Parts: sequence; C-alpha cells; structure tokens
Amino acid sequence: MILEELGMAAKKAEPQLIKLSTEEKNKALLAVADGLVADAEMILAENAKDIENAKVNHMAAGLIDRLLLTKERIEAMAEGLREVVALEDPIGEILETFERPNGLKVVQKRVPLGVIGIIYESRPNVTADAFGLCFKTGNVVILKGGKDAIHSNLSITNSIRNTLAKVGIVEDAVQLITDTDRETTKAFMKLNNYVDVLIPRGGAGLIKTVVENATIPVIETGTGNCHIFVDESADIDMAIPIIINAKTQRIGVCNACESLVVHENVKEQLLPKLAEQLKAKNVVMKADEKICQILPEAEVATEEDWGTEYLDYIISMKTVASVEEAIEHINKYNTKHSEAIITGNMKNAEKFLNEVDAAAVYVNASTRFTDGFEFGFGAEIGISTQKLHARGPMGLKALTSYKYNIYGNGQIRK
Amino acid sequence: MILEELGMAAKKAEPQLIKLSTEEKNKALLAVADGLVADAEMILAENAKDIENAKVNHMAAGLIDRLLLTKERIEAMAEGLREVVALEDPIGEILETFERPNGLKVVQKRVPLGVIGIIYESRPNVTADAFGLCFKTGNVVILKGGKDAIHSNLSITNSIRNTLAKVGIVEDAVQLITDTDRETTKAFMKLNNYVDVLIPRGGAGLIKTVVENATIPVIETGTGNCHIFVDESADIDMAIPIIINAKTQRIGVCNACESLVVHENVKEQLLPKLAEQLKAKNVVMKADEKICQILPEAEVATEEDWGTEYLDYIISMKTVASVEEAIEHINKYNTKHSEAIITGNMKNAEKFLNEVDAAAVYVNASTRFTDGFEFGFGAEIGISTQKLHARGPMGLKALTSYKYNIYGNGQIRK
Repeated sequence: MILEELGMAAKKAEPQLIKLSTEEKNKALLAVADGLVADAEMILAENAKDIENAKVNHMAAGLIDRLLLTKERIEAMAEGLREVVALEDPIGEILETFERPNGLKVVQKRVPLGVIGIIYESRPNVTADAFGLCFKTGNVVILKGGKDAIHSNLSITNSIRNTLAKVGIVEDAVQLITDTDRETTKAFMKLNNYVDVLIPRGGAGLIKTVVENATIPVIETGTGNCHIFVDESADIDMAIPIIINAKTQRIGVCNACESLVVHENVKEQLLPKLAEQLKAKNVVMKADEKICQILPEAEVATEEDWGTEYLDYIISMKTVASVEEAIEHINKYNTKHSEAIITGNMKNAEKFLNEVDAAAVYVNASTRFTDGFEFGFGAEIGISTQKLHARGPMGLKALTSYKYNIYGNGQIRK
Repeated sequence: MILEELGMAAKKAEPQLIKLSTEEKNKALLAVADGLVADAEMILAENAKDIENAKVNHMAAGLIDRLLLTKERIEAMAEGLREVVALEDPIGEILETFERPNGLKVVQKRVPLGVIGIIYESRPNVTADAFGLCFKTGNVVILKGGKDAIHSNLSITNSIRNTLAKVGIVEDAVQLITDTDRETTKAFMKLNNYVDVLIPRGGAGLIKTVVENATIPVIETGTGNCHIFVDESADIDMAIPIIINAKTQRIGVCNACESLVVHENVKEQLLPKLAEQLKAKNVVMKADEKICQILPEAEVATEEDWGTEYLDYIISMKTVASVEEAIEHINKYNTKHSEAIITGNMKNAEKFLNEVDAAAVYVNASTRFTDGFEFGFGAEIGISTQKLHARGPMGLKALTSYKYNIYGNGQIRK
C-alpha cells in the first residue's frame, strides 16, 4: 500500500464532503449504522480471526476483552453513530462578519479541518466512532488501528465504505491503512501534504511516539496524572467520597485521580478514615514520610511516583504546608488534564482555579467529570491535554477550523 | 547555556504573568517602550557589531538592511509596543458558562498559552514585537533569533528585562537563547516540558526546519503561493489593477500573488493588456503553452513553477477551461494562504469561496489584504497557514488558550 495514494484519494474526497448538507450527512450516518448491524455476521467472523491470533500470541485477558466484538457491541457502535446524528452540525456557522473602511466585507466561517488522521490501538469500536465524528464535521478520515485488530477494522471500514457508495457518497471519506508495520505508521505521521491533523487515541506510549515522530500538527490527548488537593479548610466528609470516587470508580481512565495532596493541618483528620476506605477497595498507598508516620501500611513514595499515571489501584500521597505549595507541586508533575481542590475557602479555590495549569480545574468535585458526555458535548474524539486549538473534552467543534471569505469590488492595497 | 534552565525559569515566570492585570501589563509595556528609546545608543552600538560582522561575511545588501537598526527604527519598535497597549486584552474573557443537571457549574475562560517559543531570522525588530504580543497576552516568551543579529537581539532583550525588573515584573517573562548553533536550535524545538507552542517567523526554509524537527506544537506561518483566478465573466478593467497590485505592490511578502490562473475564454482580452503593465514593472512571465502563443515574450513554465513562491518580479500563468479546473489547480499547488477570484458570476464566486482551501479567499479584491492591520486585528504574530488553532492573520486571541473552571459542592460520578 502506498501512503501517497491514500493521501491523494483523501484530498480528492475532501471537497466532496465539504459540499454535503447536514441532512445528507445524517442520512448517510444512519445508513452506515444500519449497515454495520446488517454486516454483523461478517464483522464477527473477521473479529474471530483477530481473537484467535491474540490467543496464539498470549495477549492479556483485559486486552482481548477490548478487542472482542459481540452482536451487542456492534449494535452499540451503530447506536453511537445514531447519537452523532443528533448532535448539532457546526460546519458553515458564521463566526464573525465585519466590514473594513475600504468596503471589504469579511466573513469568518467554520469549515472542516480537512483530512484527519487517527492512530489508535486494538479497539475496533474506535473505527466506527472516529469515522462518525469526522464525517459529521465534513472531514475525511484516514485510520490507522492496532495490528492485532486488523481483520476487525478492515471489515468495519469495508462495511462503512460499501454503505457510503450505496448512498452516493465518496467512499474514500474513510480509509484504513492496512500495513500495520512501524515504518508505515511513522511515514503516515509525516504525510503533511495530505493530512491536516493527526489525533492519537490510546495510552501514553502511543501518544509519545506520535508527538516525537509526527511532522503533521498533532492534538495530544489522554494522559492524565490527576491530583486532588485537600485544603486545610476542607469538609472531610465531602473530601473522602470525592477521593474514593475519583480513584476507584473506574481506574483505567485518564480522568481518574492518581495522586492525593493533603494540607498538613488536616492530615490526621483525613488520612486514617480515608485509608480505611481505600484499603476496602484494595488501593495501594505510596506516600511521603509524614503520611507514612500516620499510615504505617503506606509504602514510601519515590520521586517517580509523583509523575506516574498508574491507571491502577494505586494512589500517591503527599503533604504540603499551603495552597501555594500544592499548586507548585501539581504544576510540576501534572499532565494538564484534570485537577481538583477540596476546600471551604473560596479565596484558595480561586487561586487554585487560576494558577493550576490544566484543561479542567475543579472545586469540591470529582475529576471524573472531564468527559464529553458529562460536559454535555456528546461523543468526543478525545480529551486534549495540549493548549493549542482545543483543550479538554473535544466535541464536534474541535474537529473544525475556519476560513475568511472576503467580498470586494476591485479593492487594491495602497 | 542549558536550555532546561531557561525552560525552568520560563515555567517559574508563567504563573506570575497570569496574575498581572491588564493595567499592570500596559504600564510595563509603556515602560519597556520608553526603555528601548532610552537605551538606543547602547542598542545601536551592539547593532553596529552585527553589521560589521555581516559585511565581513559578505551578507547581501537587502539582508543587511533588514539587520540594520537606526534611531528611527528603535523609535518604531517602541511605537509598536505602544500600539499593543491600545489593543484589547483577551485574557480572562469568559467564553461560555453552563450548569449541568448534577449542579456542576462550568466556566470556560480564556487563558494564556503559557510559554511561547519564537524562532526567527536576523530581524532585530522581531525581538521587541514578539515580546510585546506575548506579554500583553500573559505569555512568557523564549526567543531564538538569527545568529547574525545576536548582539542586537541581546541588547534589546537586556533593555526589556531591565525595564521589567524596574517595574517589579519577573524579567524571565522574556529570555533569549544566546547559543545560535543548529544543535541548540534543534534541542529547543523539542523542549516539550517547558514550551507550550512554537511559532517560527521567517522564510520557507526556516519554517520547514521547524515543522520537521519540532516535537512542541507548532503554528506554521507565512509561506504564500497565492493565486488570482480570472473567470470568464471577469471585468477585465477590474482584474488588471488587482493583479498588478497583488504581484508588484510589495514582492517579498507572503500575501503577494505568485500565480495567475486565466479562464481560456478571456485570455485574449486580458493577457496582452496585462502583459504590457507587467513588463512596465519588469515582471518576468512564466506561462503554459496556450499563453505563450499569445505572449511570445513569456517563458515556458515548468511543473516546478506552479508550486513556487517566487517573492520576486516573476509570475506564473496558466489557462483553465472552467472554475472547477481553476479550483483543482489551486488546491493542488497553493500553500493555504490567500487566493482570489475575479468574476462577475456570484455562483462561481461562492463555489470558489467554499471549495478553495485557504485561510483567506477573496472575490474581486487583491490578495494583499491578508494582514492583521488590514483585517483590523492590529499587530500580528504571523499569518497561520495551518488549520489547527488559528488560521490567517493571528491577532492577540491566537496567543491564547482556554481552561474549564468547574464549581461543585461534593459531586461524584455515578
């Protein structure tokens, strides 16, 4: 497979997608959803090949579960596409209009990004999800999934392309890179002539590889070393359920709490009660010396712990003497994702909100709310942890750009 | 010089700039402007060293002129800073506020990008200009200028830092990288832990180097292979002055016209008259076969010409049979900067506006208007030719991001 050819096909499809009305896009998305359900048997048969290979290769049970498709999971993919239909189409929105003294009329208009590249791991559902969000926003998408899911991804992509062809839409609106070797992936990341934006979806390793190798503009997503700071004025009865929720409600997600920062004046009040509940959930505690004195069952934390996103039943714990010290510690080790302060002091809350550098900063709430659905944006393509373009949960608008259309009647520059 | 130390100093300065009020920032900018004028003698003495070295190294006259500072040019730099004072401060703006059914109150607020890296060529005025725009938007800036301007840049940076210290503002708000070797520059482009965004300002070569080597998010600026398409319904008397203006009013700028696309039904009407005026301005014409038959003085264009940003008294010329062919040609060779159609047919105008992929698309006007001042945005940090984050002339808002501040009272995720 020659990447240049894929790129050229994508660029050729681009102007055709721009021309589609919201109604045409929605009709196509509904047809694609029905098509996936109709093709379920074929998709499940291809998925079975991936599962068999995964077992031969001794893939971990958790990863096999992520790779596995069932009738219900295909129905859920279809349902996801139907939900995208319900979202407002941002394309064509007029952002600003102004007239210049020389009579030029300038219209700033929301347009698709163009061609979006998505690099992801062995989760076949991302194939349909990413297509749906990109298509609704008039973007062409080139997908590069994990090699362990290649049969599943190819069957899903083929189902989508067949449906698009049936409803009269250019099928190159979605393409899958079928060469799953590392060289192809790296070459894809440098396909600047054809791809406008690259969005990696996956773990820290995948994202690091993309950031280090891509020459295409990247939206960095997903890594979350999230902290909760319990201030000296915190309501301890509010703090404990928030910490337990943020740490244990779902451990493998980017908005889970990985580290607790405690004002030293409340450590005796907070920690023994909290530790009891953490232990009940089998959470391992890695703490600084002051906390280890109160909680002998805690392990001593190392420098590395402060910067680690565990995604596991582990929490790091550190004491500080002030809100300032908490902010400094968090800004040093966080990944700019989600941070929370539990406090009864609104001055400290405002200080924390203003000075902690993160996409989402919470007062007296769990970090687990940083999510497209929880924010009311609907399905998301990811959670941006960079500051360029989009920050936090990325709804449909994050998949758009703008252009200036300028109307004149012969103006020249003096 | 250790880049890590610069980066750490910048990150340390970052929260201090966030806290400054608009008034404090404006007061500091006015003081910096006055400081530059007061330090003019020192700056000119340092600039003289750069000029002397440039002459020894046989630098071209045009480049020496760009490097040269005079009292008037220092006064102009100061005036540029005073103009930035007059611009509206976008920081702190509330972009959106909404309440979720669970009672969480979400406030989306405009914040600085953080630490901005600017890589530029040997134009000492960029040192003050870039500082002014970054500082007004609460951003810390790390500058890396051309090695031929090192004495000038260092003297300007020192003047700014001294003034900042005098008015009680952290002087690391601006830092200059004094090692001008390529290795340091490349390492700077990978300083992801400390730099949030990188903006190259300069020619195509510099921008290409940054795009290829940076792991920090980049805003690509400035390359402009801009076209003017003369449609069959064009008013020829309007078309000619627009083309002459866009090609010759200032040849070395990114919004100058580099290529003419002509509908074949108007080539006889347009070209002889146009060629006369182009010749009067000493513009060399490189054209396809059909045009060469009409204009024997035109040279035959090669494939390379269609993709070349001349920045010179040269224009390429191509015939097409339709607006569709014009759009296809332009989308194949343009750099997504500025494109124009001259037409009397509003349907073709709308088609061109919608389907040509560029930051600014004009109907019946010169491409030379793509500029922060011409758009009414004031001073600009550059013209973005990418679709991520900002497109076209980048005013102060392009130097900002946003964050979500979320107020709760104990919410946990179900």
